[in-house]
Amino acid sequence: MFSVDLNSDLGESFGNYIIGNDEKVLDYVTSVNIACGFHGGDPVVMERTVKMAVEKGVAIGAHPGYPDLMGFGRRNMNISLEEARSYMIYQIGALKTFVESCGGRLQHVKPHGALYNTAAKDYELAKTLAKAVYDVDKDLIFMGLSNSELTRAGKDVGLKVANEVFADRAYNNDGTLVSRKIKGAVIHDTELCVNRVLDMVKNGTVESVNGSKIEIVANSICVHGDNEMALEFTKTLREKLSENGVMLKSLKSSK
Amino acid sequence: MFSVDLNSDLGESFGNYIIGNDEKVLDYVTSVNIACGFHGGDPVVMERTVKMAVEKGVAIGAHPGYPDLMGFGRRNMNISLEEARSYMIYQIGALKTFVESCGGRLQHVKPHGALYNTAAKDYELAKTLAKAVYDVDKDLIFMGLSNSELTRAGKDVGLKVANEVFADRAYNNDGTLVSRKIKGAVIHDTELCVNRVLDMVKNGTVESVNGSKIEIVANSICVHGDNEMALEFTKTLREKLSENGVMLKSLKSSK
Amino acid sequence: MFSVDLNSDLGESFGNYIIGNDEKVLDYVTSVNIACGFHGGDPVVMERTVKMAVEKGVAIGAHPGYPDLMGFGRRNMNISLEEARSYMIYQIGALKTFVESCGGRLQHVKPHGALYNTAAKDYELAKTLAKAVYDVDKDLIFMGLSNSELTRAGKDVGLKVANEVFADRAYNNDGTLVSRKIKGAVIHDTELCVNRVLDMVKNGTVESVNGSKIEIVANSICVHGDNEMALEFTKTLREKLSENGVMLKSLKSSK
Amino acid sequence: MFSVDLNSDLGESFGNYIIGNDEKVLDYVTSVNIACGFHGGDPVVMERTVKMAVEKGVAIGAHPGYPDLMGFGRRNMNISLEEARSYMIYQIGALKTFVESCGGRLQHVKPHGALYNTAAKDYELAKTLAKAVYDVDKDLIFMGLSNSELTRAGKDVGLKVANEVFADRAYNNDGTLVSRKIKGAVIHDTELCVNRVLDMVKNGTVESVNGSKIEIVANSICVHGDNEMALEFTKTLREKLSENGVMLKSLKSSK
Repeated sequence: MFSVDLNSDLGESFGNYIIGNDEKVLDYVTSVNIACGFHGGDPVVMERTVKMAVEKGVAIGAHPGYPDLMGFGRRNMNISLEEARSYMIYQIGALKTFVESCGGRLQHVKPHGALYNTAAKDYELAKTLAKAVYDVDKDLIFMGLSNSELTRAGKDVGLKVANEVFADRAYNNDGTLVSRKIKGAVIHDTELCVNRVLDMVKNGTVESVNGSKIEIVANSICVHGDNEMALEFTKTLREKLSENGVMLKSLKSSK
Repeated sequence: MFSVDLNSDLGESFGNYIIGNDEKVLDYVTSVNIACGFHGGDPVVMERTVKMAVEKGVAIGAHPGYPDLMGFGRRNMNISLEEARSYMIYQIGALKTFVESCGGRLQHVKPHGALYNTAAKDYELAKTLAKAVYDVDKDLIFMGLSNSELTRAGKDVGLKVANEVFADRAYNNDGTLVSRKIKGAVIHDTELCVNRVLDMVKNGTVESVNGSKIEIVANSICVHGDNEMALEFTKTLREKLSENGVMLKSLKSSK
Repeated sequence: MFSVDLNSDLGESFGNYIIGNDEKVLDYVTSVNIACGFHGGDPVVMERTVKMAVEKGVAIGAHPGYPDLMGFGRRNMNISLEEARSYMIYQIGALKTFVESCGGRLQHVKPHGALYNTAAKDYELAKTLAKAVYDVDKDLIFMGLSNSELTRAGKDVGLKVANEVFADRAYNNDGTLVSRKIKGAVIHDTELCVNRVLDMVKNGTVESVNGSKIEIVANSICVHGDNEMALEFTKTLREKLSENGVMLKSLKSSK
Repeated sequence: MFSVDLNSDLGESFGNYIIGNDEKVLDYVTSVNIACGFHGGDPVVMERTVKMAVEKGVAIGAHPGYPDLMGFGRRNMNISLEEARSYMIYQIGALKTFVESCGGRLQHVKPHGALYNTAAKDYELAKTLAKAVYDVDKDLIFMGLSNSELTRAGKDVGLKVANEVFADRAYNNDGTLVSRKIKGAVIHDTELCVNRVLDMVKNGTVESVNGSKIEIVANSICVHGDNEMALEFTKTLREKLSENGVMLKSLKSSK
């Protein structure tokens, strides 16, 4: 029996600024990564989003990022390892406490944006992030790009890890994502996306951008919910996974 | 046998900006209130300060404030009760997690600056703050101005409270502080300050600005450490308390 | 011949966060108030918005607010007069420089949100804001609530002022706005709104919430553009004003 | 007759956080670079610092940096060229307006910290910064590391440039600074520092870290004022320059 987690980034609104259809997305995913106030989100948004997720029984992860609201955490920042560690604990701690004050339990941590991308290639940074997660709670799951320095570092510090894959992104032969700057990096055909996910989940393989079959571990699929089309895709993906015998399960429940 | 807690506000530095002699102050107090990144402090400062306090065995409290770094949390902000609640949980959660990741346990929460002053007079706000603390951990002690709406609200929601007094401030007949705008609000004579503290701790009374003896509960005395003179005063106060049979104990250990 | 200015708040987006249909609104108004980065807006948004306004020939004003992005400048903050002055000059200076670097000229300044509302009733604060505007450029027009402390203070420091009125808001007998907390504060009937504006512009009067005819000066009408309905109302208002012989003119061109 | 400018970074305090002895430093330098609120400084600090500089007749420059108060603008941020341009205009505009509202005139612009260091090596970024300065006011002087991409780009866009040198830093053969990570990067001997400055100003040469005489243009010498020793050095440097026939002049007055 196959199973996989569907995750989405939520709680990115800030004050008067609204991003995403958080309430709707919660009906289609098994895990959510909630922004922690550095690149997006604010305390009120965090508490509201956590409450909704707890009520709907969706597993919750912290989504810490660089302290750069103006750049939404998508611009690389040359922070020190000490800063990276403290920024992680601060953000995870705030979110974890909202979850616990609502009677829930934090499931995982997934770094956001440029912090995720940089750490996916930088083992030392990745290990610092993973160690911070471990020091907060060694039972937290560390989610990162499949087969990257993130998941490698997570295992090395003693954490359970979740390998994240993307339904709509092309992969290089070494398992890294094709840069968005290169044509063909994003796949727009829904059927093709669904078939690639099925291949990843059931066979542990995917066709690279060069046409080779490569191995890939898929514990969680990242889906978006910031527009109607993205929600439609998620619905379709859910149906197809179900039709093909793949169960949707949060990370905790499949461990 | 009499005992009292000595508390001081710490961890107020931010990035390149240094405030206070945190390391020295830790040698003279029994509890510290650590800023949580909204009015002062940043994640690196928080983690370093928590580590020092844990190593020196000083009890730790969270010191949440308004989200106003430019005004150091000293300017009143007309936030909603929902915002007040979420801001509290966010800040307490972040600090609590630093403490726990260092193997410690958070002892108390004391609101900072304008949030403290406003809530001391506004029961509804005070109750919202106290309820947020309770929802994070019902064993946390809620520190507030002695005999104010803060301590009243803390008791009402079911928390243990710590009544805070000031060695160098004049009191009105109703137990409130004389406004700093009024002459005589701050007492500069060291001996007088020490004697007032002894009166508060041992007899539960203090002479008001009008010359009446009023009742006051003193669980914790607030001292400052941002300059050499403040440190000197704290040393003197410690000696005099000891000579007069008053033990210095953190809040938790005296319960 | 009657004329009036139509103004709208623009440039409130921030980083990845989008608010409003700025490009469309520019086709319907004669003046815009552009956020300056404290309560909304960021430097990139400011430069883009200024460019669009200059290209479309719409007059530009600065829209300075409290330093409170999380509260969108809508929460009162107890800042000092010195702070108020410096915050004004900073924000106006930044926007003015974008306008001038695009070959335009700043027309006016209108305080935003809670700063506007507080200063409308607080002469000392209003005068501090007005004096800051004067010290930046004495030819700037100071826009504020019609017949409030803002416009009074503007005249007193030697500025030209623009009295702002609201098409959809009820007025008290003394010319102040009925609080949004009171039922009937906002008027939803389009035809009634249009007729009230015509009355204000052509006769200098409006019916108060108590049914009395009161005097009111209307140099500029505030319209919104953050949703389709608001844009529709603005279109209708433009047509009706034109049919009734009222020309739409920016503030500068009507002086 | 030889002349040179002495510049120092000022106005870096923020709210309750004090950095530097701004008032004293103003007695020893001919130009100051004032922080603009992104990496340091706030509107009140800016206005006060500008006023002091205008009163003391010291020439004023803007000192714009990355939007990173927590990192004091010393951490590289991967911002786009559009962002770099708008961040420059915003910060320069704010400071320029304070200067003009005090009856002064902005003399120059010097990028701060990591923005300075990155642009010193990245021509495209340097040109974007220089073009932003030009678009604000083509008579502004653009200050940057001597013989770097900053000064090259400044000349290319049509600005007058000021080549900045450091009294206490070692230089590589190609005129770049020896990285602080390498031993010997900072020179601690006061007499040696003074002699190096005299060599740079009078002969246009300096001995590189490898012992070669290299050419260097020295229009302005950067000195620090954040501690007593730094102030002492600046006093000594002033005296020795004077004794050796080098006049101290701001950039504007020496053009």
